Amino acid sequence: MKKIIIGVMGPGHQATATDINNAYQLGKLIAQQGWVLLSGGRNVGVMDAASRGAKSVGGLTVGILPHNSLEGVSEAIDIPILTDMGQARNNINVLSSDVVIACGMGLGTASEVALALKNDKPVIILTEDPETIHFFMTLSRDKVLSATTPETAIELVREILRNSA
Amino acid sequence: MKKIIIGVMGPGHQATATDINNAYQLGKLIAQQGWVLLSGGRNVGVMDAASRGAKSVGGLTVGILPHNSLEGVSEAIDIPILTDMGQARNNINVLSSDVVIACGMGLGTASEVALALKNDKPVIILTEDPETIHFFMTLSRDKVLSATTPETAIELVREILRNSA
Amino acid sequence: MKKIIIGVMGPGHQATATDINNAYQLGKLIAQQGWVLLSGGRNVGVMDAASRGAKSVGGLTVGILPHNSLEGVSEAIDIPILTDMGQARNNINVLSSDVVIACGMGLGTASEVALALKNDKPVIILTEDPETIHFFMTLSRDKVLSATTPETAIELVREILRNSA
Amino acid sequence: MKKIIIGVMGPGHQATATDINNAYQLGKLIAQQGWVLLSGGRNVGVMDAASRGAKSVGGLTVGILPHNSLEGVSEAIDIPILTDMGQARNNINVLSSDVVIACGMGLGTASEVALALKNDKPVIILTEDPETIHFFMTLSRDKVLSATTPETAIELVREILRNSA
Repeated sequence: MKKIIIGVMGPGHQATATDINNAYQLGKLIAQQGWVLLSGGRNVGVMDAASRGAKSVGGLTVGILPHNSLEGVSEAIDIPILTDMGQARNNINVLSSDVVIACGMGLGTASEVALALKNDKPVIILTEDPETIHFFMTLSRDKVLSATTPETAIELVREILRNSA
Repeated sequence: MKKIIIGVMGPGHQATATDINNAYQLGKLIAQQGWVLLSGGRNVGVMDAASRGAKSVGGLTVGILPHNSLEGVSEAIDIPILTDMGQARNNINVLSSDVVIACGMGLGTASEVALALKNDKPVIILTEDPETIHFFMTLSRDKVLSATTPETAIELVREILRNSA
Repeated sequence: MKKIIIGVMGPGHQATATDINNAYQLGKLIAQQGWVLLSGGRNVGVMDAASRGAKSVGGLTVGILPHNSLEGVSEAIDIPILTDMGQARNNINVLSSDVVIACGMGLGTASEVALALKNDKPVIILTEDPETIHFFMTLSRDKVLSATTPETAIELVREILRNSA
Repeated sequence: MKKIIIGVMGPGHQATATDINNAYQLGKLIAQQGWVLLSGGRNVGVMDAASRGAKSVGGLTVGILPHNSLEGVSEAIDIPILTDMGQARNNINVLSSDVVIACGMGLGTASEVALALKNDKPVIILTEDPETIHFFMTLSRDKVLSATTPETAIELVREILRNSA
């Protein structure tokens, strides 16, 4: 009965315009496959944009929040999980996702990529920056993939799900 | 956009036949109101029965799991949140629920009732045991309600939601 | 090399004068045995009094704090562990203690007693209230002990440590 | 009363001989300043070596463990904090340290450096690898320092503590 859950992680206030566009598109594509979108749930940056993208086509959205109240939750979140755990909730984000997509990079996102790989989760990094890819590839060659567009990221997710089925 | 989320907490392996029947009925009634059912997500006891009840009428089920893998997850869970936090996940269960219903009593459930009240969440205890009610009433008079049937518990939830709207 | 760690849990702002006196005495007696005192670490109620009692005779004190900064930490804490986990830190309090002593009762303390018993930790409840004892005894007969003075509580700790050695 | 707590983070089984030597030396130097050593607490790699170094000169050692039992705890840990939180405990490691030293690099360590910087903790990376430094410098210029020997790392800690006093 478990639904397929795809996590989209990325910067909040520091997200670039490209990150936001990519996140919106990722959310939309994820929902169109019938997958659940999981994010950090706040009303800023990549979390918010991916959730809005998913809702624009009627998807289902889960947000794993750092706080203990609904303050600051994205309006595009259907199911807010209130952890009251601050940044430690990043570990829950990645454990609960079948595949993690990092859309842009920041400190929180870097922690999520590292925690995902540490927990043996497949990670797709959506970035044009070769140094970021290189850094994580050095730490974990087999679980890191990279993509430069939302469409190719989704193609990679599909392949990962096929291979793990 | 946030959906209404009702948490049903109760014993796992120690659940009585009455607990199981009540939990199944609660899950069904919750789903019939269009609310999301949240539980501890394991494939035993009250968590499993409530989730199966909700699915029997096409509801949506969220499980907050103590482990880091899908082993032991109830088949009636749509969205498993893997916390890898053991019993500390009980705090997430109650924070993420708009109202908490305790269906039966055990050590985990007692911790959830106490944590819910500590976090100012309304709690309904479904039990025939006056001592349990008395114990929690002594610690927090205003947030604890009691019910003796699933139907009256749901009626109380409805009232709480009306008053907090 | 591990030191023996005894947890003292109890109300914060709601602590009674008796709770405070008992906590101070417990902290002092714990330190005098050469044991480390562990508490919730805040500068109020039982946590603060037990820590001050331990420091009054040169003991070592550990506080497991709910927040992510030193604000509100008891001055009698040597080693503040900042969890940023709110009430979920209660699970860490009890897991890290060889024996848990509940000094007085409140919602946080009730959650700690329940979590300790759920995790198979021995618990001593220092109270004159038979209903509290009765409630927890019903849920877990073998791991709950009760005492009415700090001195007898410490005597019970000594016995538990002897039997588990 | 709070003691100064310095966290040493680094790989477990994947630690190199250089990481181990550096960690031992760091632990020794930290203890010689009268500071408490905090680590991930397990009996492998950098955590174990740093703790043994600290104990070799009579220091005090705290370990923040991922599990709920003492299995796998380093024998050089005086105060094991059992979190039962898996990798989410990495956030507690960095929050509880006044300064974080990363000794070597791996996935867990990368998550700790990212979480530390996200939480505004000063971080010293002890490495000869310019790409690691560059990656984290790009994400947070002001809080990352680098050192190539334990002695210079300790010198930097001293400076940070002086400036924050």
